[in-house]
Amino acid sequence: MSLFQKHEASLKQAIQALHARTFYAAFPENPSPATYGETADADGQAKFKSRIGQKFDELKQPNPEGWAGQEESPYLQEALKITYPIFSVPTLVGRASRAFDTWRKVNAKDRAGILMESLDRVKGRFFEIAYATMHTTGQGYMMAFQASGPHAADRALEAIASGYEELNRFPSSAIWEKPMGKYNLQLHKEWRAVPKGISTVIGCSTFPTWNSVTGIYGSLVTGNPVIVKPHPGAILPIAIVVAEIQKVLAENNFDTNICQLGVDTFDKMITKELAEHPDVKLIDFTGNSLFGSYLEALPGKTVFTEKTGVNSVILDSAEDIDKVAANIAFSVNLYSGQMCTAPQNFFIPESGIDTPSGKVSFDQFAQKFVDNLNSLVDNPKAGPFVLGAVQSKKTSERVLESEKLGKVWLKSRSFENPMFKKARLATPVVVEVDASKKEIFSKELFGPIALLIKTKNTDQSISLAKEMALTHGAISCGAYTTNPTTKEKIADEMSLASTPVSFNLTGGIYMNQNAAFSDYHVTGGNPSGNASFTNPDYVTKRFTWVGHREPVKV
Amino acid sequence: MSLFQKHEASLKQAIQALHARTFYAAFPENPSPATYGETADADGQAKFKSRIGQKFDELKQPNPEGWAGQEESPYLQEALKITYPIFSVPTLVGRASRAFDTWRKVNAKDRAGILMESLDRVKGRFFEIAYATMHTTGQGYMMAFQASGPHAADRALEAIASGYEELNRFPSSAIWEKPMGKYNLQLHKEWRAVPKGISTVIGCSTFPTWNSVTGIYGSLVTGNPVIVKPHPGAILPIAIVVAEIQKVLAENNFDTNICQLGVDTFDKMITKELAEHPDVKLIDFTGNSLFGSYLEALPGKTVFTEKTGVNSVILDSAEDIDKVAANIAFSVNLYSGQMCTAPQNFFIPESGIDTPSGKVSFDQFAQKFVDNLNSLVDNPKAGPFVLGAVQSKKTSERVLESEKLGKVWLKSRSFENPMFKKARLATPVVVEVDASKKEIFSKELFGPIALLIKTKNTDQSISLAKEMALTHGAISCGAYTTNPTTKEKIADEMSLASTPVSFNLTGGIYMNQNAAFSDYHVTGGNPSGNASFTNPDYVTKRFTWVGHREPVKV
Repeated sequence: MSLFQKHEASLKQAIQALHARTFYAAFPENPSPATYGETADADGQAKFKSRIGQKFDELKQPNPEGWAGQEESPYLQEALKITYPIFSVPTLVGRASRAFDTWRKVNAKDRAGILMESLDRVKGRFFEIAYATMHTTGQGYMMAFQASGPHAADRALEAIASGYEELNRFPSSAIWEKPMGKYNLQLHKEWRAVPKGISTVIGCSTFPTWNSVTGIYGSLVTGNPVIVKPHPGAILPIAIVVAEIQKVLAENNFDTNICQLGVDTFDKMITKELAEHPDVKLIDFTGNSLFGSYLEALPGKTVFTEKTGVNSVILDSAEDIDKVAANIAFSVNLYSGQMCTAPQNFFIPESGIDTPSGKVSFDQFAQKFVDNLNSLVDNPKAGPFVLGAVQSKKTSERVLESEKLGKVWLKSRSFENPMFKKARLATPVVVEVDASKKEIFSKELFGPIALLIKTKNTDQSISLAKEMALTHGAISCGAYTTNPTTKEKIADEMSLASTPVSFNLTGGIYMNQNAAFSDYHVTGGNPSGNASFTNPDYVTKRFTWVGHREPVKV
Repeated sequence: MSLFQKHEASLKQAIQALHARTFYAAFPENPSPATYGETADADGQAKFKSRIGQKFDELKQPNPEGWAGQEESPYLQEALKITYPIFSVPTLVGRASRAFDTWRKVNAKDRAGILMESLDRVKGRFFEIAYATMHTTGQGYMMAFQASGPHAADRALEAIASGYEELNRFPSSAIWEKPMGKYNLQLHKEWRAVPKGISTVIGCSTFPTWNSVTGIYGSLVTGNPVIVKPHPGAILPIAIVVAEIQKVLAENNFDTNICQLGVDTFDKMITKELAEHPDVKLIDFTGNSLFGSYLEALPGKTVFTEKTGVNSVILDSAEDIDKVAANIAFSVNLYSGQMCTAPQNFFIPESGIDTPSGKVSFDQFAQKFVDNLNSLVDNPKAGPFVLGAVQSKKTSERVLESEKLGKVWLKSRSFENPMFKKARLATPVVVEVDASKKEIFSKELFGPIALLIKTKNTDQSISLAKEMALTHGAISCGAYTTNPTTKEKIADEMSLASTPVSFNLTGGIYMNQNAAFSDYHVTGGNPSGNASFTNPDYVTKRFTWVGHREPVKV
């Protein structure tokens, strides 16, 4: 049985899920022993611990030109001292070029089979990846498991499914027979989905697998060799994924350079050299807007970016204002505001928020919000796990800086993570800003920073949220309103700014969350990024349809 | 019955044809009285003649800021003196902005219905459009009828069908229900296909409808208002199409500014101002590479280009070399080499071309080619109609210039078009160039210019054809070989240069021809253009999927 046959049913289910857009998850998100095995968690943790201070020797990339690695755990605030093989850009690109001629000629079924198999192997390492993610990104355990494990694998599967479907959407050949009066003209036509060439996937420090696997699997399924360039601060999680892909390639007698890991260090970054190399045709990037925009402007490249955004919450009216405050407080606390979908700007009318029991004033709501933030932080059974740790020192500095922006409703403060006494922590800061001070809220303040912006009314709130999205980008938007007219106005105006809106979320669902097979992540229509996974463009732009034809011999 | 219902069956057939990629034509290409009516041709010609020296007053665009028009007939070499309403860019864009809010809210069915109806109306004016095309572009009668009439309408239908399918490919709403253990979390999700905004379609002087209608209909079906900016030398054919769209819009009580004509003159071109306007989000362009590349680099725009290419013919071996010479001679004569798909560089091994009766030497083949060119030109029943006239004086000058490029096998010369004694004519020039003189054949020499390039062998021919395509672009490629290994090598190498290859064409089919619903026109993968009609990208890039969600009330 070929790998394709082994995985064919799962692939077809995934393709169906792409079109149904209802709930679908191929990889269970609950890290329960019942699902993953009694010792899976402990084994994964032990495996992670055993790597500290060691060479990562799982990659099938011969003759490294050096070994290096500068990852640091935000929980321990010390270096992991794991080292990875280092290769120069010419070496990486040269090997990828040779691999291209093999991989592009492998048919879509075999490519999909190999990639599906690699995800199955990665599934066996979800816990190890989870601990690797915690100790590079600072994510809490549950997020680290889910985002880097099953949710990332679902996103990767989505990219395989979408790529496979697009490659098979049109016939690979046809007989074209044109009536010419006295005879019929017959041409044999064939169409090839020609991969664009070497793909490089540039990772970020906060979601090292979730944000990279779609590009990796999207490029691979469409026949492009991939060079994965992780963020120097978060290598291990994606290194494990690349190692598993390489193992499946090797077992099936393919060149392992079809998917390479290209590690660099903070003092000698290779990203620009790699991106600008003439043989690199595809670039996937998650990170800051400045570098993302530079990549987008490189001539002759097909570039997919997720950059930064200024995410808004529009507060107009609500049935249960306490549930609203609790929900958005959770969204801000979650991973200390370090998600690209975390809300930053909360637009509240100066006259307050309508509720069934009358207006809740701006100040009353601000206090409810602050109270909910505090009670979650101070809950020892929840706070440390929800907030996690802060990936970068710069974020901690930014949090303190932000207290100068306006009236401070809540200062960032310290609290104790009982498991990690040395963790880099930051609780949210809440600042009140007037709507007139646009310069303050017109940029992303990455981290646990919430701005309560006092507007004249909901129309101004909508107008500002739309303007922020159009000019600075937005990946998510929250809105609370019980008025159908206002709701449609928000839906319509934010649509024009290509920003998805989560309406009236309360309880166990948050605007930060984006589900594979249902929520397109980033729309590609505003400055927060030029691509969306996984919509058809995300994979069709990785290859070109080329048609050849010839008369049928009679 | 709604317009959608009226045209639903045709639309579904067209969508099926998109996927079958066999022969399909909704509009008959034969201008026979049996199909189009006994008086259709004469009526069309009369209608065209009656326009000369008049105002084109069919457009429903009130309050023109002036009237102008500088079209000239290549057959008469005199001005047509037809004038069109002139509007400033702010007026055009302001009107389009207001029309956007209406049109984007019209559902896909109603949009498709209106657009399908407009094509039916255009069908009634094919002959008038044919004469308008002859007397602006210089095309022969048959090409003018087919390319500007039925073939263009088929391409427009293809864009409608593709857009309609993409808009309906994913559900517009779904209930997302996630099992959470003790309860199910239910979200109502909806997805909107949000049109990008104002679209401008910039026409060319040689194919004023064929190259513009895909962009016009592709943008309109996906909800974007369109400003059509024709080439100042070829306005009338597309003005008639726009007038028909506006009539159908008006009859159905829509703002006629949903599709506007924005005419300019050679001395006051508005193209740059229009393209750079911040509210213009979509740009379709056919024309020279310099301007096309400038448009592609404009920030914040989605741009679709068809620029120039250097099209090659690779001559390796053939069963019947005389049929080969006849076929490619026709391709060069057709519309005096003014098609974007016309061949220019003919790569021939110095040792000659293999045939069943032995080698045909370079010189023998060159002579056969020249003889075939001459015999077609000198055939009074075919020559004038196949060659047509030369659109631009610059092309005539280039033809004369090209005689200095190498050994001249055939000089361009005059011949008589009995119907149009004053026509601007140019028969092909044939020049021999050595493969080492790359600077000569590394650029498009637009017009009836054929370079016979002497190569070491077929491998060098392939390598040069590929290099030309990769570095200067190519829209078509011809190849003649009876060797299956060589054939696959050409197919593979030219695929990597994103260039479609027509193999071993003889008889009544030519490499210049691209059929709707089967041949993707331009691949988008080399410098000859960044888009391909009509593949899915061609329409999906005109809108953004935006998803909103809200908990289901329990």
